[in-house]
Amino acid sequence: MIEEILELMNENPVNPTKLHELIEKMNTVDVADAFELLSREKTIQIFRLLPKNLAAEVFSYIVPEKQQIIVEALTDSEVSKIINELFVDDAVDFIEEMPANVVKRVLKNLGEDKRRLINQILQYPEDSAGSIMATEYVDLREDATVREAFDVIRATGPNKETIYTCYVIRRDRLLVGVLSARALMLAKPHDIVGDIMDTNLVFAHTTDDREMIADLFKRYALLSLPVVDKEQRLVGIVTVDDIVQVIEEENTEDFERMAALSPSEEPYLKTTVARVARNRIPWLLVLMLSATITGSIISHFEDSIAAMTALVAFIPMLMGTGGNAGSQSSTTIIRGMALGEIQIRDVIRVVWREVRVGVICGASLGLVNFARIFIMSNPKDTDALLTSLTVTLSLIVTVILAKTVGCVLPITAKKLKIDPAIMAAPLITTIVDATSLIVYFSIAKMIMQI
Amino acid sequence: MIEEILELMNENPVNPTKLHELIEKMNTVDVADAFELLSREKTIQIFRLLPKNLAAEVFSYIVPEKQQIIVEALTDSEVSKIINELFVDDAVDFIEEMPANVVKRVLKNLGEDKRRLINQILQYPEDSAGSIMATEYVDLREDATVREAFDVIRATGPNKETIYTCYVIRRDRLLVGVLSARALMLAKPHDIVGDIMDTNLVFAHTTDDREMIADLFKRYALLSLPVVDKEQRLVGIVTVDDIVQVIEEENTEDFERMAALSPSEEPYLKTTVARVARNRIPWLLVLMLSATITGSIISHFEDSIAAMTALVAFIPMLMGTGGNAGSQSSTTIIRGMALGEIQIRDVIRVVWREVRVGVICGASLGLVNFARIFIMSNPKDTDALLTSLTVTLSLIVTVILAKTVGCVLPITAKKLKIDPAIMAAPLITTIVDATSLIVYFSIAKMIMQI
Repeated sequence: MIEEILELMNENPVNPTKLHELIEKMNTVDVADAFELLSREKTIQIFRLLPKNLAAEVFSYIVPEKQQIIVEALTDSEVSKIINELFVDDAVDFIEEMPANVVKRVLKNLGEDKRRLINQILQYPEDSAGSIMATEYVDLREDATVREAFDVIRATGPNKETIYTCYVIRRDRLLVGVLSARALMLAKPHDIVGDIMDTNLVFAHTTDDREMIADLFKRYALLSLPVVDKEQRLVGIVTVDDIVQVIEEENTEDFERMAALSPSEEPYLKTTVARVARNRIPWLLVLMLSATITGSIISHFEDSIAAMTALVAFIPMLMGTGGNAGSQSSTTIIRGMALGEIQIRDVIRVVWREVRVGVICGASLGLVNFARIFIMSNPKDTDALLTSLTVTLSLIVTVILAKTVGCVLPITAKKLKIDPAIMAAPLITTIVDATSLIVYFSIAKMIMQI
Repeated sequence: MIEEILELMNENPVNPTKLHELIEKMNTVDVADAFELLSREKTIQIFRLLPKNLAAEVFSYIVPEKQQIIVEALTDSEVSKIINELFVDDAVDFIEEMPANVVKRVLKNLGEDKRRLINQILQYPEDSAGSIMATEYVDLREDATVREAFDVIRATGPNKETIYTCYVIRRDRLLVGVLSARALMLAKPHDIVGDIMDTNLVFAHTTDDREMIADLFKRYALLSLPVVDKEQRLVGIVTVDDIVQVIEEENTEDFERMAALSPSEEPYLKTTVARVARNRIPWLLVLMLSATITGSIISHFEDSIAAMTALVAFIPMLMGTGGNAGSQSSTTIIRGMALGEIQIRDVIRVVWREVRVGVICGASLGLVNFARIFIMSNPKDTDALLTSLTVTLSLIVTVILAKTVGCVLPITAKKLKIDPAIMAAPLITTIVDATSLIVYFSIAKMIMQI
């Protein structure tokens, strides 16, 4: 269908009747998507041709670059119309992406109430419940009847983010209960809202972190969550569709941190090359400079190396295996903590498990490694036997150490309120590299007496 | 509240009235959670004391180990009652976790219809839409009025997974439209369902992969999605709360694959140590054996090393930086593909971007590295100058190579229908290690004439 609408959009002149007919049959998200592939002139032309009742909704799904092109081409009154029709959270998302001059013009053309509301939401800390909440919800009074509640929903519902959970508030906007549309539909018309509402409230404060909000949605399978201020007054709601996006963003952030990348909110193909490089260089630099420690360790053992250059051949395998073993542990623990399966208080249990896992992994790998070196070398060569013994022992110790470091560091980070995702493969590998070299050369010195 | 209920539960004898009062005020999820901390005897005793109308719901949230304890202690008729009251998808989840003897007993005690339904769902491929769908949905006829639709919802709604999207079907169960509760509530009582329903259908087939389903939810901000068979007949629905869980599971799988772990569905602390080790050893082994290639590369250059042992000191830094640079790229690309931001067709654009990013990163790191070695060495020592030149050049080439390999491999994997997450840090590092060593020693031979 996207090809069909693109073809219609790119005709010259465009047939508005045909366009409207097709748009009527399409999902708004797909219509907005088509804009991504239009030229600048076409973007403006087609947006003006959209059915009036859909323009704002389509606009909310269009990518920021194209939103900017559209807003810059529209008259003040057109801008005012579109933005005033957006849900406040979509308007905030839009404003956050625009350059200052566009923001200024947009805010100027907003109604007083909407402007105040948007300014207020823009002031909540980044990634807080306040910054992602919507302000269009259905509120009901405790003493209303179910019939009256339906009247409220019918009258105000079309402009609400959700009507499936209604919020029961007192005169001072104090949140006292929730009432699902399900309960309303199953109730009798003369039932009283206060009698049938659910007072077992799950709610968030405006300053709560969005990751915590996502955890509440996951735990209680919520469709929406009320957000209250310090005085427990209802100020907004968060809906599950936004939370699905939050979950993906938080996961992306973890993936990035765990790969030594500075988190970036823009899609990869829309970020400039210079910016991508800037997100990558700092950590590469830190890790490169940390790795110079391993260099000095090797220099320290230069005599041993000179006496036994064959030892060098096993360094990459040893370091690689240590790094992999450590990153397996750290990933498991970081993910377990992100999902709430592992708590800081489990630290002793986790370490004890990882040590045992390390012993099993180390022993298995050591066995295979010893067999491999032994088979491939001359059986009469005692040097080869000693080398394989040295490598195997170092391997076992390294794996156990790596597993321990890999689980202790993320938990320690969490305890220190640092994002555990920092303590992932790259950092663990650098630390394990250094440790494994010391272990390796110490064992070599002992066994081979060099 | 969890402490409060645990205290009540662990009293001897338990006060059922107090317990019921507290449970009434609590979220079912929290009640189920308390069971995790009870002894075997207490688990059985308390479960029997639960209010009858909540027992099945609480049961559906209890962890599998405790579910098993409960089912083994209950009589056949009690089991039958609980399982028959579960939603089919919860019953399937439960059955999938139980050992064969428990499954047999449970199925024996089910109603004929429910057993057939459960058996059918168990037969859908793992991770398919069919295997995660619920079968309790509201279906409406095209010719029904809105008033009649409300009657249907009131009569059957309490036992449905969701009543917020109703599905309009023909006599042969052919899916022809959807009608949201929102549209129903805003319509007039005598409106006809067929006239006001949405015929722009987003749906899945029973065999579609759950990851694809999750993408539909994300794209269209859905609350539920109909699942149809090959003949487009409605057979079930997927709801957003299950999808939130699917998203987290798919992310966990990616995190695990990217850290060279075999994906495991059990929470870490509930998996045996032996099993954790078994999930980790295969990849460690593969990577360890692959790393022997780097060993032979080093052996190949043994003469150079003997001539210039100082070169060895830079191997870990070079390999580490290459690995990190490569894993940055591969993580970015793997995540971008998982989120649908990068497609296979973007391969040329992506490689061209990564090469440029590689040049910028390599040059920056090279500069710092050169400066560091230069400052720290004796200025009159030409060997040191040559060494730092060799290391710096190798570093630049390695970073560019790593970035290229890091983006090409995941896209190639996707093209070959292999999970791109396999082509992450561990494998990339192993490949880059070998390449960087060849680059390093070749450059060394050229520059230092050894």
